[in-house]
Parts: sequence; structure tokens; C-alpha cells
Amino acid sequence: MKREFYKDLENKYKEVSLLYEIMGILHWDRSTVMPESSVVGRTDQLTNLYVLSHKMLKDKKIYNCIKQSEKIKKLNIWEKKNLKLIKKEFIINNSLDKKLLEKISLATSKCEMQWRISKENNDFKSIIPYLEEVIKLRKIEAKIKSKVLKCSLYDALLNDHEDGLSSKKIDKIFDQLILFLPKFLEEVLDFQKKNKKIIPIKDKIEIQKQEKLGRLLMQKIGFDFSYGRLDVSMHPFCGGAYKDSRITTRYNEKNFIESLMGVLHETGHALYNLGLPEKWKYQPVGDALGTVVHESQSLFMEMQICRSFEFLKFASPFMRKVFNKKGKQWEANNLYNIYTLVKPSFIRVDADEVTYPLHVIIRYKIEKDLIEGNIKVKEIPNVWNMYMNDFLNIKPKNNKEGCLQDIHWFDGTFGYFPTYTLGAIYASQLFSKIKKELPNLNIQIANGKFNHLINWLRSNVHSKGSLSNSEDLVKKVTGEELNIEYFKKHLINRYLN
Amino acid sequence: MKREFYKDLENKYKEVSLLYEIMGILHWDRSTVMPESSVVGRTDQLTNLYVLSHKMLKDKKIYNCIKQSEKIKKLNIWEKKNLKLIKKEFIINNSLDKKLLEKISLATSKCEMQWRISKENNDFKSIIPYLEEVIKLRKIEAKIKSKVLKCSLYDALLNDHEDGLSSKKIDKIFDQLILFLPKFLEEVLDFQKKNKKIIPIKDKIEIQKQEKLGRLLMQKIGFDFSYGRLDVSMHPFCGGAYKDSRITTRYNEKNFIESLMGVLHETGHALYNLGLPEKWKYQPVGDALGTVVHESQSLFMEMQICRSFEFLKFASPFMRKVFNKKGKQWEANNLYNIYTLVKPSFIRVDADEVTYPLHVIIRYKIEKDLIEGNIKVKEIPNVWNMYMNDFLNIKPKNNKEGCLQDIHWFDGTFGYFPTYTLGAIYASQLFSKIKKELPNLNIQIANGKFNHLINWLRSNVHSKGSLSNSEDLVKKVTGEELNIEYFKKHLINRYLN
Repeated sequence: MKREFYKDLENKYKEVSLLYEIMGILHWDRSTVMPESSVVGRTDQLTNLYVLSHKMLKDKKIYNCIKQSEKIKKLNIWEKKNLKLIKKEFIINNSLDKKLLEKISLATSKCEMQWRISKENNDFKSIIPYLEEVIKLRKIEAKIKSKVLKCSLYDALLNDHEDGLSSKKIDKIFDQLILFLPKFLEEVLDFQKKNKKIIPIKDKIEIQKQEKLGRLLMQKIGFDFSYGRLDVSMHPFCGGAYKDSRITTRYNEKNFIESLMGVLHETGHALYNLGLPEKWKYQPVGDALGTVVHESQSLFMEMQICRSFEFLKFASPFMRKVFNKKGKQWEANNLYNIYTLVKPSFIRVDADEVTYPLHVIIRYKIEKDLIEGNIKVKEIPNVWNMYMNDFLNIKPKNNKEGCLQDIHWFDGTFGYFPTYTLGAIYASQLFSKIKKELPNLNIQIANGKFNHLINWLRSNVHSKGSLSNSEDLVKKVTGEELNIEYFKKHLINRYLN
Repeated sequence: MKREFYKDLENKYKEVSLLYEIMGILHWDRSTVMPESSVVGRTDQLTNLYVLSHKMLKDKKIYNCIKQSEKIKKLNIWEKKNLKLIKKEFIINNSLDKKLLEKISLATSKCEMQWRISKENNDFKSIIPYLEEVIKLRKIEAKIKSKVLKCSLYDALLNDHEDGLSSKKIDKIFDQLILFLPKFLEEVLDFQKKNKKIIPIKDKIEIQKQEKLGRLLMQKIGFDFSYGRLDVSMHPFCGGAYKDSRITTRYNEKNFIESLMGVLHETGHALYNLGLPEKWKYQPVGDALGTVVHESQSLFMEMQICRSFEFLKFASPFMRKVFNKKGKQWEANNLYNIYTLVKPSFIRVDADEVTYPLHVIIRYKIEKDLIEGNIKVKEIPNVWNMYMNDFLNIKPKNNKEGCLQDIHWFDGTFGYFPTYTLGAIYASQLFSKIKKELPNLNIQIANGKFNHLINWLRSNVHSKGSLSNSEDLVKKVTGEELNIEYFKKHLINRYLN
């Protein structure tokens, strides 16, 4: 009898989960194909689903199902974890009230709109009151959540993106990076100067051809276009719904280099989504782990696999064929040098693998201090430029290439930035393990054989859904805790050899 | 105080209405851009929204709001009508149970899938059990609705598409058509033989160019692409959401003729949707009237306007320019002869304006008899072929070009067919009125000036939403009841002159 309560809970959650799926499609639509003026209606639609799912999750019937399910002894580990995750969502939703959520939604969308103008005009002053309002409201939310989760304000927001993540854990890792990276960067720049010869590729490449190459390589790696799409949007992302994984990129005729890696990065995300356990679809236990593991999958694909010499050896003939090009600059060696060029620069999304974590650390430090109340919004530009100078030894000319560059804070997102770098570290640790289990992996990649690799990721990561948290996952898969040494080793191997 | 109940009712309905809006986008997505294998998840999403909206409409709180609102004396006419429409939806939803709806959803989707195979194989026998199941379930639904609506079984299904429509009203009109059309058709064929000289256009036209022309003419007529799209799907339709009107077409390189008119037909639908009263968005009173008026708007645009000599005079230079063509066959005269060619044929969607109603009448007679239990599924082919012979004097070689051609019955739709022809009649009556109010309309059309026409439609039809029913609307706008004489006159003018 009691078991029915659990089944009922699953069914009730499925109803909410399907609303999330639909939101995924509506978000994709908004960013890719929606007529521009239809944004008013789309906001109504999304707000409606958001409020509705919040209401459904708060329902007393769910609470009753949770209570009754907790008494069942015969739940298997998936069901137990599922119950735990639903309970957490229930408790958090119950602590938040609809009006606060609506206020946040309004303030963030106002702030984001103003940000586009302020960034365009390189005018930080104009954004200050908007960002202050966003931070004020998100702090109220954080305070409520921090009580439920028994953690600090900032950690409560981290929890939106990664279950159980704390700034204590992040600090431990980032401190090691701060000790290592700036000095390492100098060595790499020095090494590069002596050893790296690049024939630059200045060819204009038609967008159609870039797209063709992207699709081709996605397919070669294992992306199934009967379950997904590749499109264009202002900011690349991976979205859609379960078994309907839609990635986007943006093209630049004068620079195909970054757009291609963007596609392969998002392919990593998409393969994760498509590999989630079908048996647990529409349940939180069947969902992807937080953004740390998600970024680990995209960075794994982009950084570990696709920027490797072996991959570029495999890909270069396709580039030459699709782009109809020849010459030494299109050979794997030169492509590899291009794709592993290190150069401190202002814009995070254009940063190389070595300097990227430093961009992230700067943002992490600032956003934590903003939420914990240690710095004020108006102080951001100075703090930003100080860190840029300290870590990267460069100073932004203006805020447009400084603290106004990213959308995150202005659309209300806090606690996301550190997951990029944690993901990169996970990726290198996973890769080190895979190489032991698949000793011929490098040869396989050079020959365009990705099936063993993808199968390994599927069975060790993707198919596990949210059964373990990310810490346990890395322990189960690699036999040890998250260890930054793998990341360092990877960087040393790639950039000082 | 009581007024708040009405406002509350509006808010509650808005929540449901936004789910309909979302379904519109998800349907569009499924037919145009969705990866093929993602259909499983999409079915889950749509079923979820369907069941959810049904549940929300049945809610007791809605009933209370309706009861309280009915006591308010100060509702304006829009509010009164809105209350009435919500009440009707509430009553119908309350009479239906979720399990029946789910059964119907399952049976129709099974039947539709089988239909694709049966049609492909020209095998009527294989579809019989599926269609029998669909009809059985829809009859159960019709029986429930017929009690609520106090009408016959078939009329209950008609009501899905047009509030207050009855087979008695349809019979009256269709009987007149049956008396008129077959004889008229003979005359037209005879007249054509003597008077119509056509230089056939056999040029292959690239799809890209056809699309370019379609977009151009849509814009010229008044379609605003910042609130809509034009895409490709297997079956042309107009969908999307309010202020996000998305039409589709299909292209044939060997025959641009029909695809262009398809685009203009759907543009008529889209202009109606985009012209609905913004003040009443997300309320039933602000919604489009049933399919009769919807078809009247599309057929108005396609038949009355775009197949006219004046329109083709305006459009032919654009055709020549976009297609890069010249010669006599591209002159307005010849295009007009092509676009008004009458020829009895088997396929409804390819039929001309004169024979189209006969195709509709055949389907109307058969579906009414199926629902009222006067004929059996297995008898359909014989009855179909008999009618085709009687009305059009041709006999289908097989069921693929006979009773298996349309999707409607096999996806569970009954009561839709007659609205096509009622729409055509409305369109001709409206057009006759417009010509009186805008005496220079023909000159305007020939010069590509559509703003007066569109404004007339906006203020007389589109902006009225569902304030009146379609019968009252035609009376208000034209000063008389629906009168088939306008349609006959239009046909005589166009095809015997």
C-alpha cells in the first residue's frame, strides 16, 4: 500500500518535470527562431510555467507523499535518492513565496535589459541601481535558502547550480590554482616564445561551410541528429529537453577557430543530456548532476579531446575538404599550435585553457564578496581591474572589456562561475582515468573512433544521472577525491612540451 | 467586492490560456524543427499540458468565481460574453473525465500512425479497426457533450470547431450548393473550353526563390515578420501563439503555383490572429471565433483577393523579378487563367474554388452518418466513390486518392470539414460588403495598396474577437444573415465571364 505513495510522488513530480522540459524548448525557441517582438508573450508563457511549477511543488499532497514514502523500507537506492531530491526541492519551494520570485524575475529582467545598454555605452554607473536591486532580492532569497540548507548566503546560491557545493571546498581548490597558475602562465609564455611557430589562418570561411564542418564532426563524435539540432544564437548554449538536445553557436566568417570549438564544447553537454538514464526520466535522480559535472563533460570534449593533437590530426582533412583549402597552415601541427595558444586577454569567453581559470577566480571572489556584503556594487570596477592586474598582468581599458562583459550577475546568476573551473578539473581527472582504461584512446581519436570513449562516458558518468553527488561520482569513477594535480599535470603536458 | 471574483476568474483563465499558447508553440515546433525521434518526449509534454489545462478548468474555485460573477450587475458586454464562454468551457470540461480524454488521445495517435501506413499501401482494410475505435470513443465523448449542449451527437462535435453550429444550418446551405454546383460546374467547363487559353508554366523554380516571393508578398499585404514566421512543414498550417503567428507551407520545385497560394491562404489566418483585441488577450472573448470565421479570413485572402486579376497584375512583376523570368506566360492575364482553372480532380487540397465545396459536402455527409451511426467504417470506400461519381463525375482509381487522402478522421477530427465551405461563403459575403465600402478596392489591390482593406478587416472582424458568434458577426457587418447568393454570384462572375 505505502509503495503507492512513492509511485504517486513520482507521477506528481513528472508533471512538474515536464513543465521544465517545456521551458527548455521555449527558452531555445526564444534564443533562436522566435520573432523579435513576440518576446512579450514569451515572458508571459515562461512566467506562467515558472509560477505553476513552483505552486505544484509546494502542494500539500506532495508533502503527504513524501512523508508516507519515507516510511517505506523497500525503496531501492535510486528511489531513495529520488525521494531525497524531491524532498529538498519541496522544502526549498515551500520556503519561498511567489511574490519574492516574481519580484526577482522582474528585477533581473530589468537589469539584464539595462545591462545591454550600459555595456554598449561602456557606462557602469547606469547599471548600479539595477544590480543593487537584483543583489538585494537575491540576498533575501539566499537568506531563506541558507536557513533551510544550513549554510552561508553565498553557499545557498551555489546550491542552485551544484548540490552540496560550498565556498570552503572551492577556496581550497582555487587557492592552489592561485599559487600555481600565474607562475605557470609566465613559463608557458616563455616556452611558447621559444618553441611555438604558428602560421596564422586568415581565410574567410563562409558560415554555411563552418556549419557543415560542425555538423560533420558532431556526428563523427557520436551526436545523433535524430535527437537534436545545431542552430545559431547570440550566446552559444545547450538546451532543449530530454532526448531533444539542441545546441547553438555563433559564427564569425573571419574566425572559424573559436566557433568550431564552441560547437564541440556544447556537443559535450548534449551527449551528457542524451545519455541520462531513460528509466529515470522526468525524475530528479535521472537528471544531470549540477553544472560542475555538466561543465566537466563539455570541457572534457572541448579541451581534453578536441584541442588534442590527435583530434586535430583526425579533423584537419575534413576542414580542408569542407572549406576547400590547402597549405601548411591546415596541417594538424599548425592547427594544434593555434588551438593551444596561450595569451592573457580581457574577455573570458575568448580565453585560453591556462588563463581561463584566472578569469573565473576573479569573478568568484567578487560575487562572493557581493553576496556576503563585503564589497559594494560601485566598487566592482576597481576590484575587477586590481585582480586582472594581479592575476593576468593586464588592465582593461574600460568596463566593457572588464566587469561589464558577462551577462551572469546582471541576469541574476550568482554561484555559476566557479563551476566552469571545477568542471575543467573534473575533466582532467576523468581523462587521466580513461586513458588508463582505454590505453589506445589516442590512436582511436586520431582515427576518428569515438565509440569506446563515448561508451565509457555513458556508462561511468551519463547513465548515473544524479544517483551520486559530484564528489562521490569522481571518487567512484577515479578511485580518489577531486585532485587538482591532474589538471596541473594536463596543463604542464600540453603547454610545456 | 464581487467584481473581484470576476477579475479572479480572468486571472485563473489566463493561466489555462497561457498553456494553450504554449501548446501552440510546441505544435509548431513539432511540425517544423523538432528532431524526428524527439516525438516521444513531445507527446509527453503535450499530454501533460492537455491534462493540466483540463484539470485547471474543472477546478472548484473556477466554479465559485463563475457563480459569484454571475451575480455582478456591472459587467460590460465583453465581460458578460467572456463569463459565458468560460462557463461553457467549465461545464464541458467538468462533464468529461480525464481517462476518456487519455483514451481518445491514445486511440487517435495510434490511428493516425496506422493511417500513414495504410494510405501509403492503399490498404483501407488495415485501418478499419483503428478508425472504429476512434469513432467509438469520440461518440462516447459526443454523447456526454450532447447532453450538456442539448444537441445531436454530430452537432456536439461540430461545436468543437464552431460555437452554436448545427447540421440543420449546414444542411440548409449545402442543399442549395448541391442544387447549384454540379450544373454550374458543367457550364464552367464548357465556358472554359471555349474561352480560356492558358500558356502553361513548366519552369522549375528553386525553393529559395519561391520562399523569397512568398515573404515579399506576405509583407506587402501587411504581415509583420517581427510578430511571425514562415517555415516549411509537411502539411501547411497557421499556428504559434498570440502575437507570434507562424505559418508554414510546402514547396514543389516543379509547381510554384499552389505553394504560393498556400502561403497567402495562411497569411489570411495569421492576419486574423495578429489582429485580435489585445485588451482581451488570454481570455476566450478575445480569442478568434471558430473555424468558420477563421477559414473565412484565409479564403478571403486566398480566393477573393489573391486569385483576383488585380492581385495577379500587382504580383506578376515581382514573380518575374524574383524568379528571373520573362515571357507571356508570366503576364497577369495568363496567371489569372491558371489561378482560376476549374478541373474536377480527386484530391481536395488541390481542388479549385468551384469543385472544392463538393469535396467538402461528400466528407460532411459521410462523417455525419458515421457519428450518427447510419453507416459503418467498412462502407466508407463505396459511399465515397458513389458521391464522387454523383457530384464530380469522376471515380477514384483507389482509396489513396479517395477516402484515405485526408488526415482528419484518422486523427479523430470530426465536424471540421464543413467549416471550409461555410468560410468560403462568409468570405464572399464579406467581400461584397467591402467593395461597397471601399469602392476603389480593385484599383488599390492592383497597385499593391492593402492598408485600407486590412484596416477594414481589422476593425470589422479581427478586433471583435469572440464578442459575437459568427452568425451575429456576419449580420452586424453585412446587414444580413449568411446568404449563399453572394458566393454563387462570385463564382458566376469569376468563372462565367
